[in-house]
Amino acid sequence: MIRVGIIGSTGYAGQEIVRILLRHPEAKIVWYGSRSYIDKRYSEVFGNMFQLVEDICKGENMKELADQVDVIFTATPQGLCGSLVNEEILSKVKIVDLSADFRIKDVDKYEKWYGIHHESPDFIKEAVYGLCEINREDVKKARLIANPGCFPTCSILSVYPLAKEGIIDMSTVIIDAKSGTSGAGRGAKVANLYCEVNESIKAYGVTTHRHTPEIEDQLSYASGEDVILNFTPHLVPMNRGILVTAYASLKKNVTYEDVKAIYDKYYKEEYFVRVLDKDVCPETRWVEGSNFVDVNFRIDPRTNRVIMMGAIDNLVKGAAGQAVQNMNLLFGLPENLGLEMPPVFP
Amino acid sequence: MIRVGIIGSTGYAGQEIVRILLRHPEAKIVWYGSRSYIDKRYSEVFGNMFQLVEDICKGENMKELADQVDVIFTATPQGLCGSLVNEEILSKVKIVDLSADFRIKDVDKYEKWYGIHHESPDFIKEAVYGLCEINREDVKKARLIANPGCFPTCSILSVYPLAKEGIIDMSTVIIDAKSGTSGAGRGAKVANLYCEVNESIKAYGVTTHRHTPEIEDQLSYASGEDVILNFTPHLVPMNRGILVTAYASLKKNVTYEDVKAIYDKYYKEEYFVRVLDKDVCPETRWVEGSNFVDVNFRIDPRTNRVIMMGAIDNLVKGAAGQAVQNMNLLFGLPENLGLEMPPVFP
Amino acid sequence: MIRVGIIGSTGYAGQEIVRILLRHPEAKIVWYGSRSYIDKRYSEVFGNMFQLVEDICKGENMKELADQVDVIFTATPQGLCGSLVNEEILSKVKIVDLSADFRIKDVDKYEKWYGIHHESPDFIKEAVYGLCEINREDVKKARLIANPGCFPTCSILSVYPLAKEGIIDMSTVIIDAKSGTSGAGRGAKVANLYCEVNESIKAYGVTTHRHTPEIEDQLSYASGEDVILNFTPHLVPMNRGILVTAYASLKKNVTYEDVKAIYDKYYKEEYFVRVLDKDVCPETRWVEGSNFVDVNFRIDPRTNRVIMMGAIDNLVKGAAGQAVQNMNLLFGLPENLGLEMPPVFP
Amino acid sequence: MIRVGIIGSTGYAGQEIVRILLRHPEAKIVWYGSRSYIDKRYSEVFGNMFQLVEDICKGENMKELADQVDVIFTATPQGLCGSLVNEEILSKVKIVDLSADFRIKDVDKYEKWYGIHHESPDFIKEAVYGLCEINREDVKKARLIANPGCFPTCSILSVYPLAKEGIIDMSTVIIDAKSGTSGAGRGAKVANLYCEVNESIKAYGVTTHRHTPEIEDQLSYASGEDVILNFTPHLVPMNRGILVTAYASLKKNVTYEDVKAIYDKYYKEEYFVRVLDKDVCPETRWVEGSNFVDVNFRIDPRTNRVIMMGAIDNLVKGAAGQAVQNMNLLFGLPENLGLEMPPVFP
Repeated sequence: MIRVGIIGSTGYAGQEIVRILLRHPEAKIVWYGSRSYIDKRYSEVFGNMFQLVEDICKGENMKELADQVDVIFTATPQGLCGSLVNEEILSKVKIVDLSADFRIKDVDKYEKWYGIHHESPDFIKEAVYGLCEINREDVKKARLIANPGCFPTCSILSVYPLAKEGIIDMSTVIIDAKSGTSGAGRGAKVANLYCEVNESIKAYGVTTHRHTPEIEDQLSYASGEDVILNFTPHLVPMNRGILVTAYASLKKNVTYEDVKAIYDKYYKEEYFVRVLDKDVCPETRWVEGSNFVDVNFRIDPRTNRVIMMGAIDNLVKGAAGQAVQNMNLLFGLPENLGLEMPPVFP
Repeated sequence: MIRVGIIGSTGYAGQEIVRILLRHPEAKIVWYGSRSYIDKRYSEVFGNMFQLVEDICKGENMKELADQVDVIFTATPQGLCGSLVNEEILSKVKIVDLSADFRIKDVDKYEKWYGIHHESPDFIKEAVYGLCEINREDVKKARLIANPGCFPTCSILSVYPLAKEGIIDMSTVIIDAKSGTSGAGRGAKVANLYCEVNESIKAYGVTTHRHTPEIEDQLSYASGEDVILNFTPHLVPMNRGILVTAYASLKKNVTYEDVKAIYDKYYKEEYFVRVLDKDVCPETRWVEGSNFVDVNFRIDPRTNRVIMMGAIDNLVKGAAGQAVQNMNLLFGLPENLGLEMPPVFP
Repeated sequence: MIRVGIIGSTGYAGQEIVRILLRHPEAKIVWYGSRSYIDKRYSEVFGNMFQLVEDICKGENMKELADQVDVIFTATPQGLCGSLVNEEILSKVKIVDLSADFRIKDVDKYEKWYGIHHESPDFIKEAVYGLCEINREDVKKARLIANPGCFPTCSILSVYPLAKEGIIDMSTVIIDAKSGTSGAGRGAKVANLYCEVNESIKAYGVTTHRHTPEIEDQLSYASGEDVILNFTPHLVPMNRGILVTAYASLKKNVTYEDVKAIYDKYYKEEYFVRVLDKDVCPETRWVEGSNFVDVNFRIDPRTNRVIMMGAIDNLVKGAAGQAVQNMNLLFGLPENLGLEMPPVFP
Repeated sequence: MIRVGIIGSTGYAGQEIVRILLRHPEAKIVWYGSRSYIDKRYSEVFGNMFQLVEDICKGENMKELADQVDVIFTATPQGLCGSLVNEEILSKVKIVDLSADFRIKDVDKYEKWYGIHHESPDFIKEAVYGLCEINREDVKKARLIANPGCFPTCSILSVYPLAKEGIIDMSTVIIDAKSGTSGAGRGAKVANLYCEVNESIKAYGVTTHRHTPEIEDQLSYASGEDVILNFTPHLVPMNRGILVTAYASLKKNVTYEDVKAIYDKYYKEEYFVRVLDKDVCPETRWVEGSNFVDVNFRIDPRTNRVIMMGAIDNLVKGAAGQAVQNMNLLFGLPENLGLEMPPVFP
């Protein structure tokens, strides 16, 4: 039984790790970390866990934690994991970091986009970008996983096959993304109040959103080019879900069947990636509560572009579910163990 | 492995049975019945089931079905199950009827409130009202289960202990209930369109809702009196969830501890009923996606009334989850098998 | 032209006063008060007012304000208006207080339910409870208006005619109310975040909500009895709207026509109160954005109770609209001036 | 007083015309047309109009109508207005057609995208595309107005200044649009049920949406080039609002100030178009219920693209409000008469 510690267990992503691991046959949470709720019963913070979790929230004593658990999930603001990691700790436990601290290989780029100083740059190289469908073998051997961001997960998986196969002009890629409000976190801010979000949609972080370099990096690796693109997220009045609509010009004359074959090449064997039937557009309702990624595409002969679409649950495949998927790989378990729950609808 | 047939598998409750049973270790769905979608792939009707269910929807040939399955769930409009049941079928399979056909013991009362003729009144007596927490032993021995309605499940479980112990004046019981919109079904009606339901709340079926006699019957059995009460449902702009706020005058001078002891007496050993801590009010978000019932109460010394509150997910404990709970009892399985999923939040 | 000052103009109710008065032909806002946003452009706080309001937010200098305006609206937390009012100010301006400070005639009761010390109890007697439909003539002559609470407005107007005519047993009155989330204000609290409110419903303040004594007082005046009742508010995932479902036992044998005649007696000439057609239940969507109150009732011969229902927009008739209605009366204007906007749907 | 007839008054757009005109000082609705609700009281169809509209719904007798009114609004499915218009009718009344029948100058293009035969192609040339900010002078002299579609209104006004001034490469324009659900109409379809739309987002009509040629035509006129672009609409769980996020490559090296000056050149004097302050993104909540269009842009020096954004209320500026704006121009009234209502928030 894998002993698990969670730092940041009282955010939305942290709580989702709890929800998933409560049903995981090979893992047991032994440390519910929460800076804000130390000494409070976890089920007082999240009423859904009443009678399911009896634990009390604890602080983030990394050293003590490293002695008690086999894996640590850090579902914390940027910078925290970077400030805690060191060789001693990594020699004892595996770490799945849900923050951005180890996602960007170029520390200058990280510090520029995030506006913070990285406290453990030596470990960036070692860290594996935990997008399992792409880096599966590296994940299995890793000690430190940089769990991908929610928008990057959906964006990259939607575009990856066509970038990899070189059929789209990478300089034309535009990613227009839409996210449910849980992506904004559980902090008490006026902008995230019910009445402010409900019955509205807006773009935010236009040209400056921090997930941009993460997406660019991964699509650069895939395409073998330096990719610079536009990424525009939008806030949608719903709890969960990310939808990505990505646009790119085609470099070759391709048919539906050609492109379908490319998606199938990469995803046919992937349990969590579902390439939808022709003309079916991904919808976030069909993946809610699950670790699935629904992708599809449509060619526009008028403009010679392809529109690539993807949908995930931002808290599952975009955070907690993917973290558990990484844990499974790290510990040699079946990749979908504890993650087979069908999407919840409606 | 229990072979399962579902008649009405393309309604919201039917689909929820599918979602639950896909993870049930001892059950396998072999018949996806749907009058509206015959010959269509189930996963075309519910995109969440893409790649999880490969089956095609079939009609409701009860005879053929009875030869192929061990249990039939009828998640159909009132009257259908009543028209299909007979001795031959019951000799072969067990039936869990999610409609109201076998819930009311007095056939005249049923026909009056529902406005339809009952086609198999002979089986009403045999049918067991499948509120497991109350009728567990009878359920185990039954062939035909009348799965409780969503509002009745929540209403009865909220009030039952105090009715049973005789500390409330049953002639003063008023039940004010609030339901998410999935309770209205998947039929295409203007009144249930997004823009009609969103940003509004209304009462409906005031003094005439069909769940009234079902609640009255069960609370009559509990209290040993003929109970007549007010039940007022409201439509709330959310997908899932029922909240019940019930009022009654106290017959005795009781303290919080007295009443708490009564709730604990009936529910302490119940896995699915959670009596909340003092002063914590049930909220539907804390039970969503799960089979839990959260209940609590508050005494008002000013008016000498007790306010009893309960929350469920109408599609789980209020329909599909309870149906599976009944199935587990019918087949001698642990009652919560396949139903331990924690509530999904947010 | 009436010169208007608003203290607390950056809350939801304050902003709604602005929205309404921008179209009012006889009023002009000259002071946008806001403790939190002093020196900030009002339209930066509320983007809907961009290019419509050029003013800068100011502090709450009551003395200066009293010299510049004819009427002050205080849309502020409890206690503030009470701390600002004095004879000098009232000799210069009229005040419409949207807080509870002057609603309860018994200062001890106020202090007990609100848990704060009243700083100007001498003015409580003078203040007129501004429920125009009931206290119209007193309002016209007043200097200080206690603008009714949102729940009390809807509750009282739903029950008033039957209480006044003595046909219901006042000791049996139970009021179950449901409110949209703008009623919770614009403060940054976790409990009011989008993801916490969305897809859930809960009761709160059960047996202890501060609007209880306000409702009891007014229904006591109406019925001539000391009324003690249960009032239970619920939080609903929508921006605006209050629905009240009130229950009481009938003291007499009455028909639909009898009760309808009573409602018509009090409301037929009222512009803002709409007694709906037989069997039509009030819905909050039909009053949204307007100052209307939709009321109706249903008699239950089985229980000998009457169910009284009412719907308002909590920010309009429940706050800002009613405040403007009071202003109109105070200044001898047509009562519905600037308030004739039809409800916005959907 | 302008006498108004509405054909299709019981759809969402038709009802919004009613809401607006009830407050219009120079217009009076004398004909509430509705094929579906003939002989029914209008206020039974829309409860918000109770006691505000006493009229009965009538059929669409165009001839009779033409004798009784000065202007007809056709808020009807495509094809209907085209089938009703003729010289005799246009000699008597002005027509504002909210359908697409007269928006596309090339009848073949219309018939191809809409899949229907145009029954009065002779009037297409005469019809004026009623985007008042662009075609104001032509509108004033017209008899037949093609009221712009909701997506085109928002898309065109967001992109128009830069297209007109030639600073963007029109072959790179991509428009990603998001709409509230009222845009889908009031027809009873499963896909538009509350539980299907709520908590989800999806793209639809990808590469094939009928508003594409309308947008292309108008941007072609503006830029003087044949524009072919990608337009992708998305369905958002909210009642009202359209947000457009448009992307294009810059042809010149421009600063924020340069581009701002261009937007100001076209919109500074426009009452209904609000060019937001630097870095403020349009949000649909700030225009809800009003005829305003909020636009802004952001330059991305990394990709050399400009992101143009716009927000409208799809039922107001995207339909009914713009129709009334056209009516005002047709009858020589101030363009914003009856349309000055501030946006409703929250």
